[in-house]
Amino acid sequence: MKQKFDFLPRITAIATQSHGVCIDKNGLDEQTLLDLLSSREPFDLSTMDKTDFKGDSFNFIQQVPASILAETTPVNPRSGLPALDYLRAGAKRGLHLITANKGPVVYGFRELTELTRQNGRLFRFESAVMDGAPIFSLFRGPLAGAQIHGFYGILNSCTNLLLDHMRNGETLDEAIRYGASIGITETDPSNDVDGWDAAIKVAALSNVLLGQSLTPMDVQPIGIRGITPEMIAEAEAQGKRWKLVCQGGWKGEEYQVSVKPEMIGPDSPLYTVDGTSSYVSFELDVLPGLGILESDPSPKTTAFGLLADLIDIAKSESR
Amino acid sequence: MKQKFDFLPRITAIATQSHGVCIDKNGLDEQTLLDLLSSREPFDLSTMDKTDFKGDSFNFIQQVPASILAETTPVNPRSGLPALDYLRAGAKRGLHLITANKGPVVYGFRELTELTRQNGRLFRFESAVMDGAPIFSLFRGPLAGAQIHGFYGILNSCTNLLLDHMRNGETLDEAIRYGASIGITETDPSNDVDGWDAAIKVAALSNVLLGQSLTPMDVQPIGIRGITPEMIAEAEAQGKRWKLVCQGGWKGEEYQVSVKPEMIGPDSPLYTVDGTSSYVSFELDVLPGLGILESDPSPKTTAFGLLADLIDIAKSESR
Repeated sequence: MKQKFDFLPRITAIATQSHGVCIDKNGLDEQTLLDLLSSREPFDLSTMDKTDFKGDSFNFIQQVPASILAETTPVNPRSGLPALDYLRAGAKRGLHLITANKGPVVYGFRELTELTRQNGRLFRFESAVMDGAPIFSLFRGPLAGAQIHGFYGILNSCTNLLLDHMRNGETLDEAIRYGASIGITETDPSNDVDGWDAAIKVAALSNVLLGQSLTPMDVQPIGIRGITPEMIAEAEAQGKRWKLVCQGGWKGEEYQVSVKPEMIGPDSPLYTVDGTSSYVSFELDVLPGLGILESDPSPKTTAFGLLADLIDIAKSESR
Repeated sequence: MKQKFDFLPRITAIATQSHGVCIDKNGLDEQTLLDLLSSREPFDLSTMDKTDFKGDSFNFIQQVPASILAETTPVNPRSGLPALDYLRAGAKRGLHLITANKGPVVYGFRELTELTRQNGRLFRFESAVMDGAPIFSLFRGPLAGAQIHGFYGILNSCTNLLLDHMRNGETLDEAIRYGASIGITETDPSNDVDGWDAAIKVAALSNVLLGQSLTPMDVQPIGIRGITPEMIAEAEAQGKRWKLVCQGGWKGEEYQVSVKPEMIGPDSPLYTVDGTSSYVSFELDVLPGLGILESDPSPKTTAFGLLADLIDIAKSESR
């Protein structure tokens, strides 16, 4: 980081739901943190705390020595809370904001952008859609001169994996149990299965890239619970595959969105998007289709999105 | 442009191979230029010249009132000339450089980057590979924090279209005549058919993104001349399609490149890349596969790449 970007980030404070809080204004020792994580034992971060901090998450955000808040709490598709409030608190304190959470992007994109801007700070959220694959940064940078008309794709990797397993003869419940066993399903499985995770991503892309103000409820998603073994068999017989397809964009004067299962044939780029991969295609004024395929992401990919945001912030500081 | 990026580019001088030269330091009238182009009659730009310029292309580059040189001459895969010399002349004069030409990228990437850097100028070439789809800008910006190990894809849209037509029963010669009739084949069709256009793109990606110093000759491309109707039929019988596949990347300690026809099955993202579309997939330390699909580009897409470079330069000037 020092060599390539001429900055060296320090982790000065961490607050977690179940492992406690730690703060050291000189920077926490990263190897000790990594060792704690890899031990896979319950651990208490407060043993590393040099301040004996007492207080709640808001006190933490208001008081810790830091210039950037990176927020990674679980998503709440109905309100974006509490993540949105954490980020508001950080913005009001004058911190740069990074989140991997779709909730505050959908419910707070304009507000948090404006709050951070007032302090000359940035709000970044690359990992909120398709992990660390470049989406939002693409439209801020390389595609800043293009006009986007709409998008479609496969944005929920969990249902994509479940449909793959159902194609191989498993029931939805069996597939869900498998997904949970490898840690792929989100905290609440109905978020994925009923299309809410996809809907919140459609709202996020619509709000950030296409100037809309949608909630996931506006998307009225149709999930994959209605897909029966008979429907799977029928698709196979036609040489097609069921995919949970997301769409958003302008049809004439009207902005339309949808999340629903569709039978996809082998001539669509969606056909080969399997396992936990995702795909989005953008329709631009300068190009009818620009597709981005993210194959087999790992937690490292999500972490990279946070890092890319951090680098973007560091670059803005050095200007 | 003014509203979104707070700058307003002026076209002050144009030099062409067959339509003459024109120069106006106050900016050429764009509508007049567009009208000239759309008239589709032979035209003489010098009727618009306010300077009565005499001289060759090098005098032109050295003398015209400008801060940016945008170069779009045809590619020369053996040397990158004369484009490389034009750009050298521009760099030495202290101009920013933009090119849509792969030649000077392959043969002059490091030299032109260094020459422009010495004057605080930039060398940009987004359109050199996959038209205006974001490739080089992606690695400068959103993916700057990632490490690339290699890439593969379909980088020559002409042969992709020819193979499509051969799949529908045409001979290679018939397909070539069709490609020429719609203006898809490059100036020299053997550039495409024998894999040289693909090879120069493999060299460009290798040199810019992976630190190599390759020429197209190093790639030793195998083109599509050897693809017979029998081979097409055999692929069809297996449910596969012939594609001209490009590759570059590290295999252990060795950097390997290839351009050669391969039979591709329906489980590869390359299978659905048809017509004049292109595809590239990057292998990154943080993600096994990040694919970029460019569907049905037009000359507008190439023009957008030049515009994206111009915007990038304008942003650098405003810092």
